[in-house]
Amino acid sequence: MVRYEPANSFETPRFSGVRTFMRLPSTQDLQNAEAAIVGAPFDTGASFRAGARFGPEGIRSVSHLLRPYNPSQDVSIFEHLSVIDYGDVPVVPGFIEESYEKISSGLEEVHRAGVVPIVLGGDHSIALPELRAAAAVHGPLALVQFDSHADTWDAYFGKKYNHGTVFRRAVEEGLLDPSRSIQVGMRGSLYDAGDLGASRELGFELLTTDEVREIGVRETVERVRGRVGDAKAYVSFDVDFLDPAFAPGTGTPEVGGFTGREAQEFVRGLAGVDLVGCDVVEVYPQYDGPGQVTSLLAANVAYEMLTLISLRKKGSDG
Amino acid sequence: MVRYEPANSFETPRFSGVRTFMRLPSTQDLQNAEAAIVGAPFDTGASFRAGARFGPEGIRSVSHLLRPYNPSQDVSIFEHLSVIDYGDVPVVPGFIEESYEKISSGLEEVHRAGVVPIVLGGDHSIALPELRAAAAVHGPLALVQFDSHADTWDAYFGKKYNHGTVFRRAVEEGLLDPSRSIQVGMRGSLYDAGDLGASRELGFELLTTDEVREIGVRETVERVRGRVGDAKAYVSFDVDFLDPAFAPGTGTPEVGGFTGREAQEFVRGLAGVDLVGCDVVEVYPQYDGPGQVTSLLAANVAYEMLTLISLRKKGSDG
Amino acid sequence: MVRYEPANSFETPRFSGVRTFMRLPSTQDLQNAEAAIVGAPFDTGASFRAGARFGPEGIRSVSHLLRPYNPSQDVSIFEHLSVIDYGDVPVVPGFIEESYEKISSGLEEVHRAGVVPIVLGGDHSIALPELRAAAAVHGPLALVQFDSHADTWDAYFGKKYNHGTVFRRAVEEGLLDPSRSIQVGMRGSLYDAGDLGASRELGFELLTTDEVREIGVRETVERVRGRVGDAKAYVSFDVDFLDPAFAPGTGTPEVGGFTGREAQEFVRGLAGVDLVGCDVVEVYPQYDGPGQVTSLLAANVAYEMLTLISLRKKGSDG
Amino acid sequence: MVRYEPANSFETPRFSGVRTFMRLPSTQDLQNAEAAIVGAPFDTGASFRAGARFGPEGIRSVSHLLRPYNPSQDVSIFEHLSVIDYGDVPVVPGFIEESYEKISSGLEEVHRAGVVPIVLGGDHSIALPELRAAAAVHGPLALVQFDSHADTWDAYFGKKYNHGTVFRRAVEEGLLDPSRSIQVGMRGSLYDAGDLGASRELGFELLTTDEVREIGVRETVERVRGRVGDAKAYVSFDVDFLDPAFAPGTGTPEVGGFTGREAQEFVRGLAGVDLVGCDVVEVYPQYDGPGQVTSLLAANVAYEMLTLISLRKKGSDG
Amino acid sequence: MVRYEPANSFETPRFSGVRTFMRLPSTQDLQNAEAAIVGAPFDTGASFRAGARFGPEGIRSVSHLLRPYNPSQDVSIFEHLSVIDYGDVPVVPGFIEESYEKISSGLEEVHRAGVVPIVLGGDHSIALPELRAAAAVHGPLALVQFDSHADTWDAYFGKKYNHGTVFRRAVEEGLLDPSRSIQVGMRGSLYDAGDLGASRELGFELLTTDEVREIGVRETVERVRGRVGDAKAYVSFDVDFLDPAFAPGTGTPEVGGFTGREAQEFVRGLAGVDLVGCDVVEVYPQYDGPGQVTSLLAANVAYEMLTLISLRKKGSDG
Amino acid sequence: MVRYEPANSFETPRFSGVRTFMRLPSTQDLQNAEAAIVGAPFDTGASFRAGARFGPEGIRSVSHLLRPYNPSQDVSIFEHLSVIDYGDVPVVPGFIEESYEKISSGLEEVHRAGVVPIVLGGDHSIALPELRAAAAVHGPLALVQFDSHADTWDAYFGKKYNHGTVFRRAVEEGLLDPSRSIQVGMRGSLYDAGDLGASRELGFELLTTDEVREIGVRETVERVRGRVGDAKAYVSFDVDFLDPAFAPGTGTPEVGGFTGREAQEFVRGLAGVDLVGCDVVEVYPQYDGPGQVTSLLAANVAYEMLTLISLRKKGSDG
Repeated sequence: MVRYEPANSFETPRFSGVRTFMRLPSTQDLQNAEAAIVGAPFDTGASFRAGARFGPEGIRSVSHLLRPYNPSQDVSIFEHLSVIDYGDVPVVPGFIEESYEKISSGLEEVHRAGVVPIVLGGDHSIALPELRAAAAVHGPLALVQFDSHADTWDAYFGKKYNHGTVFRRAVEEGLLDPSRSIQVGMRGSLYDAGDLGASRELGFELLTTDEVREIGVRETVERVRGRVGDAKAYVSFDVDFLDPAFAPGTGTPEVGGFTGREAQEFVRGLAGVDLVGCDVVEVYPQYDGPGQVTSLLAANVAYEMLTLISLRKKGSDG
Repeated sequence: MVRYEPANSFETPRFSGVRTFMRLPSTQDLQNAEAAIVGAPFDTGASFRAGARFGPEGIRSVSHLLRPYNPSQDVSIFEHLSVIDYGDVPVVPGFIEESYEKISSGLEEVHRAGVVPIVLGGDHSIALPELRAAAAVHGPLALVQFDSHADTWDAYFGKKYNHGTVFRRAVEEGLLDPSRSIQVGMRGSLYDAGDLGASRELGFELLTTDEVREIGVRETVERVRGRVGDAKAYVSFDVDFLDPAFAPGTGTPEVGGFTGREAQEFVRGLAGVDLVGCDVVEVYPQYDGPGQVTSLLAANVAYEMLTLISLRKKGSDG
Repeated sequence: MVRYEPANSFETPRFSGVRTFMRLPSTQDLQNAEAAIVGAPFDTGASFRAGARFGPEGIRSVSHLLRPYNPSQDVSIFEHLSVIDYGDVPVVPGFIEESYEKISSGLEEVHRAGVVPIVLGGDHSIALPELRAAAAVHGPLALVQFDSHADTWDAYFGKKYNHGTVFRRAVEEGLLDPSRSIQVGMRGSLYDAGDLGASRELGFELLTTDEVREIGVRETVERVRGRVGDAKAYVSFDVDFLDPAFAPGTGTPEVGGFTGREAQEFVRGLAGVDLVGCDVVEVYPQYDGPGQVTSLLAANVAYEMLTLISLRKKGSDG
Repeated sequence: MVRYEPANSFETPRFSGVRTFMRLPSTQDLQNAEAAIVGAPFDTGASFRAGARFGPEGIRSVSHLLRPYNPSQDVSIFEHLSVIDYGDVPVVPGFIEESYEKISSGLEEVHRAGVVPIVLGGDHSIALPELRAAAAVHGPLALVQFDSHADTWDAYFGKKYNHGTVFRRAVEEGLLDPSRSIQVGMRGSLYDAGDLGASRELGFELLTTDEVREIGVRETVERVRGRVGDAKAYVSFDVDFLDPAFAPGTGTPEVGGFTGREAQEFVRGLAGVDLVGCDVVEVYPQYDGPGQVTSLLAANVAYEMLTLISLRKKGSDG
Repeated sequence: MVRYEPANSFETPRFSGVRTFMRLPSTQDLQNAEAAIVGAPFDTGASFRAGARFGPEGIRSVSHLLRPYNPSQDVSIFEHLSVIDYGDVPVVPGFIEESYEKISSGLEEVHRAGVVPIVLGGDHSIALPELRAAAAVHGPLALVQFDSHADTWDAYFGKKYNHGTVFRRAVEEGLLDPSRSIQVGMRGSLYDAGDLGASRELGFELLTTDEVREIGVRETVERVRGRVGDAKAYVSFDVDFLDPAFAPGTGTPEVGGFTGREAQEFVRGLAGVDLVGCDVVEVYPQYDGPGQVTSLLAANVAYEMLTLISLRKKGSDG
Repeated sequence: MVRYEPANSFETPRFSGVRTFMRLPSTQDLQNAEAAIVGAPFDTGASFRAGARFGPEGIRSVSHLLRPYNPSQDVSIFEHLSVIDYGDVPVVPGFIEESYEKISSGLEEVHRAGVVPIVLGGDHSIALPELRAAAAVHGPLALVQFDSHADTWDAYFGKKYNHGTVFRRAVEEGLLDPSRSIQVGMRGSLYDAGDLGASRELGFELLTTDEVREIGVRETVERVRGRVGDAKAYVSFDVDFLDPAFAPGTGTPEVGGFTGREAQEFVRGLAGVDLVGCDVVEVYPQYDGPGQVTSLLAANVAYEMLTLISLRKKGSDG
């Protein structure tokens, strides 16, 4: 079996070559992969700013900074895991339902091959076809969502599908097991006093930023791990979970969020969870400054997700 | 009758106040208006870059630089014309057909009141509902289109409605009189040798940038005037008609275009035409630099259009 | 009585319409308002960077992201409060004293109508005419100032009026009750060892950033509340109170400041205070990145101020 | 006598060293200089955008690209001319009349030493103290003004001194000989039909951009040379003379202007004129993109002015 | 034989997928290719600005806008030509001579396979290893250089290899036939009166921008064609040939240059020339604005070069 | 003896004058100086982004915001210390070893005059010639390095000298006393599990960011002070020690870093240490946003270093 890994940065500089994630091979050879970076450049579901279609490009660009050994988790990712950059799933800009079908069938193929996708968004509306694909193969999933918004509104402008309604739809379609699912980080102004209650009515556990600040990051991580247990899990990471100082390049930023280090701690805290898929979404490169801090942060979140998958492989290898 | 005009810039500075076009009153009082600036912040129809939803904001912001007397046409616009900033017509982001209905019915109300709309886009897909509204009141129209693309492709991704197909649809729906219509400025790479022929098959006259460069700007203006004659006309101005140096903030820029001064000459050349409506589209502020040259250029195009309407009023007043 | 509130974002998208604060009505109908957003686009008093004249535009632009329910304070702002966007008070760029007169008389009208102004600056020199207007109606006020600079220098270049001398002038003119006033957050390099002592000599309590870090945010909030008591209060919030990572778009940034969340906590901590007016100043959009984090932060501060006013109304309604 | 010239770029790279104009010595030794670069970082007179106070810094920064031999004029500038970077004259931000006094007395010292100043603005309001200083030494001057605005309005907001009124004031004060003076390039919207007539009433010749386009650049240059003749001349170059594509970083840009090459041709065409002083004004670096094209253009204009002075020296040396 | 061509933009949107040039396959299969895009991300040879190492990424990113049919030359490029994106040749940042060896040997392989490389720079110092590779296979070449600088200085800081000396070295090494070579577009300030004479002494024909303006673009094209004749030719296109308004994102911009349309005309004018290799260099994305006009222009130049190769294939096919 | 100090900001505004650090005199008069700001605009050693050659310009530009009294350390810096802006040491862009010689000999002159240099980088590769110069005068030094990378790799692309290998080289050359040296803040992905062990094998103490977070900032400061003791010390501060939100404008940013305030605390904690030289490196202005937060932070770090030197002088004066 071929093992796919990044190009060697002691031989060619990191700024060189076609921009794939971490300089991984650009291939659709699912047979020889265990995890796959998959772009979903869709942004028709966004309610305020536009441009998440360029999110995968932005993340891939700056991901060339990443190196293969993760010291905080003590693992050389690619020693245990063969990873490819699968390219992007097809989308139809301007047409949500058609895009959902294409994204979903594209990702289902990945899951069926036994490969764990790390999806680069795109606006958060892509989480629905992601979950359709994952649940088709794995059954209802435990959701771990890091986000400043619950995204469980019912509709915008009378429309059911967009980046603010996606997790309500997922529950309605039976893709999630709400009793094993948790939403973390909600904050910012709302339309109505009942907005967050909606999530709880759907069966989710929900921890607002105010609540996380009360109990602390470590305790929150414990809550997440306890909630998920040994269920098959899907992690969805919206970069507006972070404070706008750390992730300005996003679609609906909310003041008062988390730091980059806290984001790392939350994802690292999921070590051991049975991750069948994940995403990092809502990166809008045109709103990022020249320092590309949002794309860099998203690349690091994807990197920590890859680490989780590698760690679990390492454990089962051992 | 109330006459609406901009705030006086010798009393309050131009950088002050809520951003309406040229500091005009923000009102929907169509009874006392003769022309209206109307935003159409829709960008779901865009095929490459995203963000034209912020076009109306960008144009309004920098339009505060404009003053009421146009020396090149020798007219004090608001002495002859009452103008309002009508605000934006409603749109449903992510849903083209619903947005078309809302844009069309919003604009039809303007036309029915005898008010000439100057529409600020938005991506070029809004031209279809614009023309539906105008034709519903005025019948089939002569189109004058300044653009680097003919926008007469049949479909993208199997979809009929987007910013590249809009004028084919308009002909199919009988909104235009192709024999009085002309498209000016096409250039740049195409999908197929037959792409521009499609426009001619629909009955349009079409002058590519190469052809305009051969015959010159003045002769082109004569061709346009001759083609339109005394028909009721609709002018659609896509800022990618300009060279990217003059209008970088657009969705599908094409190298080798026109200068800002040439853009002014083309619009000024339409003096006397029976203009029932017009637009300036495809402004993407996030792709404009800090100097806002694209928005400024679009504001000037809208200003020259207002001038045309005022000139005609002045003529009929006299 | 008319109740003014923002446009409904389930009907028209938040990115649409002329940019007023939170999509509030643009009107000067003080009779039917209880609070008013008022721009003061003045920047002639700035000593380093320039451009705060565009602060009100920047804040209004991104304020469209804000929604009407504040979950951290559990209040639907507009259920208890009628709010308008009053536009900008007139200024005379380049002339401080004339501008002071215009700003002051403009705001006094607002106060006399019993409406609480939330002023969007502008450089901090506008605090003097703000306080003249407020004190003319309400008498000497308790000042709560969040800022990295005390702004109590005596003069720059032999000149008495600018953004670094404004609170010394206010005390000299009897507009403040220093014994109920407090300045919070001073830090950064100074001209002289005695610079901060000047504030204390004027009678203010002053807590430097170093001191706040020692006692903590909660204790600081208690100190502020204790100092102000039940006096009529004016809150002045300079965005350079924040660290440059959180508010880069300001005139004289100082390293080592507060986070966005801390800013929210400080303002929220003023619940119950008898607020007769307030401002958020020193936003320079040209120095903000494309993510507009400074404007967003200022919009959120203004939003928390509106919340305070609504909460107090709700209390008195109840 | 010491001859001042730029650092040698074959010895140290052009990107190194403290940013003086062209890497000239930073000194106030007027005795050994024949021409001097002088910054006037004043922007209190600006009516729309702000920030020209950083114009001198921006121009100096990118002027390091310039090399000592001008092939279009065939002269090695510093073989014939000793040039210094004199630094900036003092200003009092926020106070026009005080600043005028300081700028004027600062520059008069330069003129009295027989040194030709090339002033880097600053907004155009600085032209008045420049002319006061020059006329005090040389008597009434022939003005050659390249600009999109005539700057002969009478007042803004009832105020006599700002960047839109400066040449009217100069005539009123007897600093200019209007019969030898010419304004070139006026265009863009105006407040009133009579705005440009005002210049002609003051005695200036005025050629609008429309007129220059009719007669051509070469003929225009001849007109300028004919008008000035052998009078002592002052050249004032406002970068908004250029089209916004070539100079976006300015305060009141006007669409439809000149190219960079045309700007060079206009200044080069003044070879032989008896230049006693000159300026390049209205550079606003915050509105320039990262490519710094406006500052680069202004640096080149200053360079062509230096060339003129050197050429004349060369002629008289020869 | 496989024919490589871009992904179909009617099936997947142009903004999707890993960024290769024009969405061509990323492969090193030289056997089935006739032309190859090759990045050379080297910038150690730059004398002023830095960052051309990101040039290939910038050009590839925006090249997704390009479509396969070139109407100005009436050719569907990929009907006649199989093209790949070969990726980047290896470089050693910080070490010029080692990089030269790697670039040269990487490109020689391409030439030996009978594939025409279109090299994306990188600073202009890469032209030397490009020419070494080409001449090793094809013998001494006719050079057509579009550039504002002749790049025939002897040394900087005592060093022989950098982006200002490269064509002198190429002549010294016998890689070029100067009698068939021509340099076009030189302008801007120089170190010494003899700088351009150096090129002529080396045997090159050289046309400055001033000279091109005198004789016109069409006559210049004829001169180039006449000079090259039927020799094997190498075209090197430095984007600083363009005016900074059209190409701000470059290392040593020179005011007064050519427009984007003129750049197209120059390259199109080479139809029929026996092109064995070519490059487009000196793109610095960090100095380009958000509209990416420099990268877009460079992508269009590369596209016109591909067109030339396809046209010649089409001719020989036919 | 002359005492050099900044220009008085109550007489001329801080935004005026040629950009030297803090408006200090630009002079090379080492006889009358005790500390000197020295730029080292070298970036040939950078492995990912490029452009640190403009770091000294960026830092000097925004350093004009700094005032002479440091309240956190209670010292008026220039009452005890005469400081100059020495300009930049010569470099040879593109040639590391030649540059090392020039930087080293340039700085050795400073040390020999008994002046403490505060070096503004430049990429981190300049630390080697800095240490060569310092050790030549002072013998082996205690290194205090704040950085996210240890920079003790052996080679990149087979090359020994670049910004990732510099401290290994310094130990090999005997310039440091590892037993008194400490590296603080390492974090981020690595190439190999042994990367950080390499530092410890060289004899350095190394505290990762994870470790600092465990023990806290104050305890870390104590560890540093304990390690250095009374040895002659060199402090090297790489701005990527900070989180990218606080310092986006750097070459190899690492998520999860320190805040600006923490950076201040670390440097302030070195009060009393026998500092013989120091630097702040890896500022890339083109990657900083318009708010210049990275340059501002670096200027503040240099300011705190100046404070340390002044404090020690004040102590010995007293």
